[in-house]
Amino acid sequence: MNIILLSGGSGKRLWPLSNDIRSKQFIKIFKTADGYESMAQSMYRHILKIDSDAKVTVATGRSQVSEIHNQLGDGVGISVEPCRRDTFPAIALAVSYLHDVQGVGMDEPVVVCPVDPYVEDDYFEALKKLADIAADGRSNLVLMGMEPTYPSEKYGYIMPKTKDKVAEVSSFKEKPDEETAKHYIAEGALWNAGIFAFKLSYVLNRAHELIDFTDYKDLYDKYETLQKISFDYAVVEKEPSIAVMRFSGVWKDLGTWNTLTEAMSDSTVGDVITDKNENVHVINTLDIPVLVMGMKDAVIAASHDGILVTDKEQSSHIKPFVDMIEQPVRYAEKSWGSFTVVDVEDESMTIKITLNPGQQMNYHSHDRRDEVWTVVSGTGRAVVDDVSQEVKAGDVITMHAGCRHTLINNSDSELQVIEVQLGKDIDVKDKHKFELTD
Amino acid sequence: MNIILLSGGSGKRLWPLSNDIRSKQFIKIFKTADGYESMAQSMYRHILKIDSDAKVTVATGRSQVSEIHNQLGDGVGISVEPCRRDTFPAIALAVSYLHDVQGVGMDEPVVVCPVDPYVEDDYFEALKKLADIAADGRSNLVLMGMEPTYPSEKYGYIMPKTKDKVAEVSSFKEKPDEETAKHYIAEGALWNAGIFAFKLSYVLNRAHELIDFTDYKDLYDKYETLQKISFDYAVVEKEPSIAVMRFSGVWKDLGTWNTLTEAMSDSTVGDVITDKNENVHVINTLDIPVLVMGMKDAVIAASHDGILVTDKEQSSHIKPFVDMIEQPVRYAEKSWGSFTVVDVEDESMTIKITLNPGQQMNYHSHDRRDEVWTVVSGTGRAVVDDVSQEVKAGDVITMHAGCRHTLINNSDSELQVIEVQLGKDIDVKDKHKFELTD
Repeated sequence: MNIILLSGGSGKRLWPLSNDIRSKQFIKIFKTADGYESMAQSMYRHILKIDSDAKVTVATGRSQVSEIHNQLGDGVGISVEPCRRDTFPAIALAVSYLHDVQGVGMDEPVVVCPVDPYVEDDYFEALKKLADIAADGRSNLVLMGMEPTYPSEKYGYIMPKTKDKVAEVSSFKEKPDEETAKHYIAEGALWNAGIFAFKLSYVLNRAHELIDFTDYKDLYDKYETLQKISFDYAVVEKEPSIAVMRFSGVWKDLGTWNTLTEAMSDSTVGDVITDKNENVHVINTLDIPVLVMGMKDAVIAASHDGILVTDKEQSSHIKPFVDMIEQPVRYAEKSWGSFTVVDVEDESMTIKITLNPGQQMNYHSHDRRDEVWTVVSGTGRAVVDDVSQEVKAGDVITMHAGCRHTLINNSDSELQVIEVQLGKDIDVKDKHKFELTD
Repeated sequence: MNIILLSGGSGKRLWPLSNDIRSKQFIKIFKTADGYESMAQSMYRHILKIDSDAKVTVATGRSQVSEIHNQLGDGVGISVEPCRRDTFPAIALAVSYLHDVQGVGMDEPVVVCPVDPYVEDDYFEALKKLADIAADGRSNLVLMGMEPTYPSEKYGYIMPKTKDKVAEVSSFKEKPDEETAKHYIAEGALWNAGIFAFKLSYVLNRAHELIDFTDYKDLYDKYETLQKISFDYAVVEKEPSIAVMRFSGVWKDLGTWNTLTEAMSDSTVGDVITDKNENVHVINTLDIPVLVMGMKDAVIAASHDGILVTDKEQSSHIKPFVDMIEQPVRYAEKSWGSFTVVDVEDESMTIKITLNPGQQMNYHSHDRRDEVWTVVSGTGRAVVDDVSQEVKAGDVITMHAGCRHTLINNSDSELQVIEVQLGKDIDVKDKHKFELTD
C-alpha cells in the first residue's frame, strides 16, 4: 500500500501542548506498552501493522520535518511543501515524489488521508480496501464516506447513488446548516472526510495537465509559483467517475481539548495527583507535580509553554486568548533530539539540549550572542571553528559570537548539554549554517 | 513600642507556594503600589507606619532567618530558637534578647503576636493600646480578646468579668465544641488569639523563676536542654491579674487557600489570562503564562515546586496529598538573594542564583559534586581556593569537588549566575563552610 499522510499546520487550539511549531498530531498522549505515543506515531504504527511493506509518505511543511523524523524515524518518506499552496499542489507534489523518488509505478494505488484523526483498527482495514478498489480501476477516484452520527455542519456531504457498501457518487454537497444536514442524512448522505484513493497515474496525469513541470525536482523548484487550488476544485468536482465506500467505524477529529480528552485512555498523563474529581483530564509534561482536587468537567494541561485550566465546554474558545500570548517556543523536538528553554532573563537564555544517539546538530554560528555549553550527561564530540574535541559530562565549551560550532553524539546513549546564551537580542533567527568538513 | 512577632513553622497547606522551608507568611500576594508584599512584610510595614520607632523582633526557627532578612531587611531583630521548645521558652528567649541585645528597659511594655494574621489598620491601633495598658501596670498581663463572629471550635475562649472595652479576665476555656461555644459567646466570651502584652520585667522574672540562666547568651546556649512548655501553661494559667481588651475589627487566620484567597485584593497574581470564570483566584510565580477559562470556585497556584488546581472547599484537605510529593525545594529566598532549580537530571542539577547587591554567599565546598558557574548578568567577585577574580556576564568558572568557592556581589545591581551541578548524589547537605580571609 502507498499512503500519503497529510500533516497539517500548527495549531493553537491545543495550547500549551501545541504551538507555532508543534502540531497536535505530535502530542504524545496515547498510552502504549512502553509509554505514550502521538497521533502521528499511532497512525504510522497501525499502517505498518496492517501492511509491513506500506510505503508511507508524509506531505507537510518545512517546519514539521524535524519532528516527523524524530517521531517516525527515517523509514518514512517526507514530501516537503516549500510553502503553502492548498491541497492540489500538495498532493501533486507528494504523488510526484512517490513516482520519481520512491519509484512507485503508474498503475499502483495511492491512498491519501489526514495524519491526525482518532481511529481504531477497522479504519486501517478500510484504507486497504480503498486501495484495492482504486486498483481495480472501475472508478478514477474512490472516497471513503463516513456514516454520519449527527447532522454536522462541519463536513461536506457525499450523496451516493445506492445504499451499497461501495456505490457511485451522485453529487457532492457543501457544508450545510443543521436542518439541511438532516435532509441529506435522510437521503443516505455520508460525510466527506478527505480520505480517498486513486491509481498514481490518474493524479499525476491531472497534475501534468494543470501544471507545466517535468518531474518531482522541477515541481518542487517551481512550487512557489503555483496557484493555490484545492484538490476538490481541481480534480473531484470535474471527475464523473467517482465511487464511495461507506465506513461506519470510529473516526474522530481531535481538534479541541474537549474531543482530544475523550480519546485519552488514561485520565492523566505525567506527574499528576488527583482527588475527588469528576470527568477531569490532566496532561503534565513538566517535571514538577500537578495536584488536582475537587474539580469537574475540566482539562488541565501544563507544558514548558504555559498552563491551561479550562472547563471542557469552554475549551473550544481558546484561540483568541492563546493569540494574546507572545513568547518564544519553550520546547521543541528536532530531527536530532529536543531542546527545552529552562530560564529566560533580559540578556540571557538557558536551554537544555538533548542530542539523540548518532545525531548531530547543524554546524552553525550566531552574530549577536555568545554561548557556553556544559555537558551534563553522555559523551560525544564538539567542533568549534573546525577544531574537534571529545566531550563528556563536566566539560565546558565557550563560544563567542561569530564562531562556528556543532555537537555530535557519536555514542549510543543521549548526550545532554546545558547551553547558556548571552546577548542583548537573543533570537532563533540569528543563525548561519555551514558545511562541516572532516 | 516593642513587639515580638511569632513566626511559625513551615506549612504544606498552601502548597505549592509554601513548602518545607517557605512558610505562608512569606508568600507575596498582597498588592502594594510597587508590586506585591507578603503577610510578614505587610505586618512589619504597618507596625512601622503606626510607630516608626517600634522595635520589632521576630521570634523564629533557624530555617526562616534568611527569608526574614531578605524580606524585612536588616532593621528587624531576630530571636532565633536553636530548636523547637514550645511557646514559653520561645517568648522567654525573645524577651531576654530584647533586654540584653536590644537594650529594652525592664519597665517597658512588650507586645507578642503572630506574624501571619490578615488584619486592617485598626488592628495596629489596638496593638498600641494593648502596650499602653500593659505599661500602666494595673494588670500583669493584657490579652487581646477577639469578638467572635461564629461559634468556632478552633479557638480557646476568654471569659471577661464585665462587658467593658477593657475588663478583668474571669476564666479561660479550652477549645469547645460548637454547642458549648454558643453558650460561651452568649455569656460574652472572646476568642483567645494569642496576642498579649506585658512589662518586660514580668516575663523576664517568670523566666528566671522557671529556668536557671544568667542572660540571653546563656539561655540561647542551653536552649536545647529546656523543657517544652507552653506560655499558657507556664504563665497565663497561674496569673491572677490578667486583663482583656476587646477587639472587633478584621482579624483572619489565612491558613488555607480558601481563606487566603478571600484576602487577596486582586483575583490574579502574575502572568495570568482569564475568561468567563466565577470566584476563581490564580497565583502564578512562574515565567510562563497561565490561561484559565470557564472555571468556578477554584484556586490555581503555580510555582517552581508544582501546580495546584483545586475547588476552594476542597483546598482545606490538601495536606495528605502534598505529603505524597517527594522532591527537593525548587525555589528559596535566602538572606543573600534567591535560587531557583531550573533543571534536574539523574546526575546533574541546574539552578539560577540571584545575589542581591552587596551580598555574598558562604565560602563553601562540596564533597561529591563539581560545579560550573556561567555569569549571566551583573558584576562581582568570585573566590575559588583563596584566589579572587573579578567576574562579569559571560565569564565561566569551573569548580571541582572539594574546592572552596564563593561569589560576592560588590556592585549595586543584581548578580545572576547559572550553576550546573554535576555528580551522582547531589544533595543540599553536601556542604562544608569555611571562613573567608582576605
